[in-house]
Amino acid sequence: MPKSIQVVEKILDANDRQAGENRRLLDSAGVFSINLMASPGAGKTSVIERTIASLAGTFRIGVIDGDIATSLDADRAVAAGAKAVQINTGGECHLDAVMLQYGLQQFELSGIDLLIVENVGNLVCPASFQLGTHKNILVASIPEGDDKPYKYPGMYRGVDALIVNKIDLLPYIPFRMKYFRQGVEILNPGVVTFNMSCTTQEGLLPWLLWLGEQVDHNKRSNDH
Amino acid sequence: MPKSIQVVEKILDANDRQAGENRRLLDSAGVFSINLMASPGAGKTSVIERTIASLAGTFRIGVIDGDIATSLDADRAVAAGAKAVQINTGGECHLDAVMLQYGLQQFELSGIDLLIVENVGNLVCPASFQLGTHKNILVASIPEGDDKPYKYPGMYRGVDALIVNKIDLLPYIPFRMKYFRQGVEILNPGVVTFNMSCTTQEGLLPWLLWLGEQVDHNKRSNDH
Repeated sequence: MPKSIQVVEKILDANDRQAGENRRLLDSAGVFSINLMASPGAGKTSVIERTIASLAGTFRIGVIDGDIATSLDADRAVAAGAKAVQINTGGECHLDAVMLQYGLQQFELSGIDLLIVENVGNLVCPASFQLGTHKNILVASIPEGDDKPYKYPGMYRGVDALIVNKIDLLPYIPFRMKYFRQGVEILNPGVVTFNMSCTTQEGLLPWLLWLGEQVDHNKRSNDH
Repeated sequence: MPKSIQVVEKILDANDRQAGENRRLLDSAGVFSINLMASPGAGKTSVIERTIASLAGTFRIGVIDGDIATSLDADRAVAAGAKAVQINTGGECHLDAVMLQYGLQQFELSGIDLLIVENVGNLVCPASFQLGTHKNILVASIPEGDDKPYKYPGMYRGVDALIVNKIDLLPYIPFRMKYFRQGVEILNPGVVTFNMSCTTQEGLLPWLLWLGEQVDHNKRSNDH
């Protein structure tokens, strides 16, 4: 079906142009930004809550939450202490760069050091749409199973960092960490990985240090 | 963007026509069919394994597995004792009726009583594409969290039955069953629901009895 492929390519071209615009806007305001992607229920919102609770004393944080419906996630981000904007995609299975542009317009960007974008819960579609953020980050979780890198290679291949959440559930679930890691390594060799539990807070610190360093470095580059 | 909406409507119309064709083909062969949908890692394949293990002595079962990549799920269905066909969507986030038509062509349908279709792991896109199967069934799971009906209403609204899997993990996860059930009831009042654990096998029997009854009723209608 060459016709429908052409349409998809045009959509992706337009998206990439807008993603470039978003990046320029973020850079000119000195905002470091991450795009959190995951399967539904992997714990994106919990990661964001923990991140805000730990870093909000050091950095000014904004959150853009993408969801099919409701503002439940944005409400949680606000409760944790961040400025938050909810984007309801109204059925769309991913955020795209135009939706992010709309979200960015809701913020005073000069008042933010770190922007966290929470994508729609989906391991397929968000991987195809760049938003213009500085880092794409995947939140995997133990209960999803150890075969997910093999089954969703596009998502695992494209990310800059990987959070493996809910490690507190490892005793109760058959999850072969070696098999999981092998799949990750084939698709994305050496990708920086953080094993953690937002429930017990085990393993959170390396993630917070890494993210804090990225934001700090971005701020300092911007000050010069 | 009226143009792109038009394209989507045409695609859905064509899909519905093919779904009708699939249903006629299944009915004329006396095959009862279900379409299992879920978030990645909710346990579709485990439900299928348990179902085959219990019902394969009574019914002849075929499985069509939809995945972005790999034949891991079809391999598991074959190991459990069913005939299985893998459809790799090559990036597409859902099965559609044309893909199912292709899958159906790989079977001798007169040799099957029950066809289980395992959709791509995704709580958004599969809800929009009817396949022609007799029942659409959603597999939810406890670790996904209790807010999923509210966040993925399209999926919860459209299904004929709901499996809530991984109830063995309830002691380890904050999951408000009442809040979850309220969301389900708003969207899909009275939907038949099976709480179960494929790991401990708790709660499997009502599901097996319900499914077995559907298949049996379909066979008897067909024999007259």
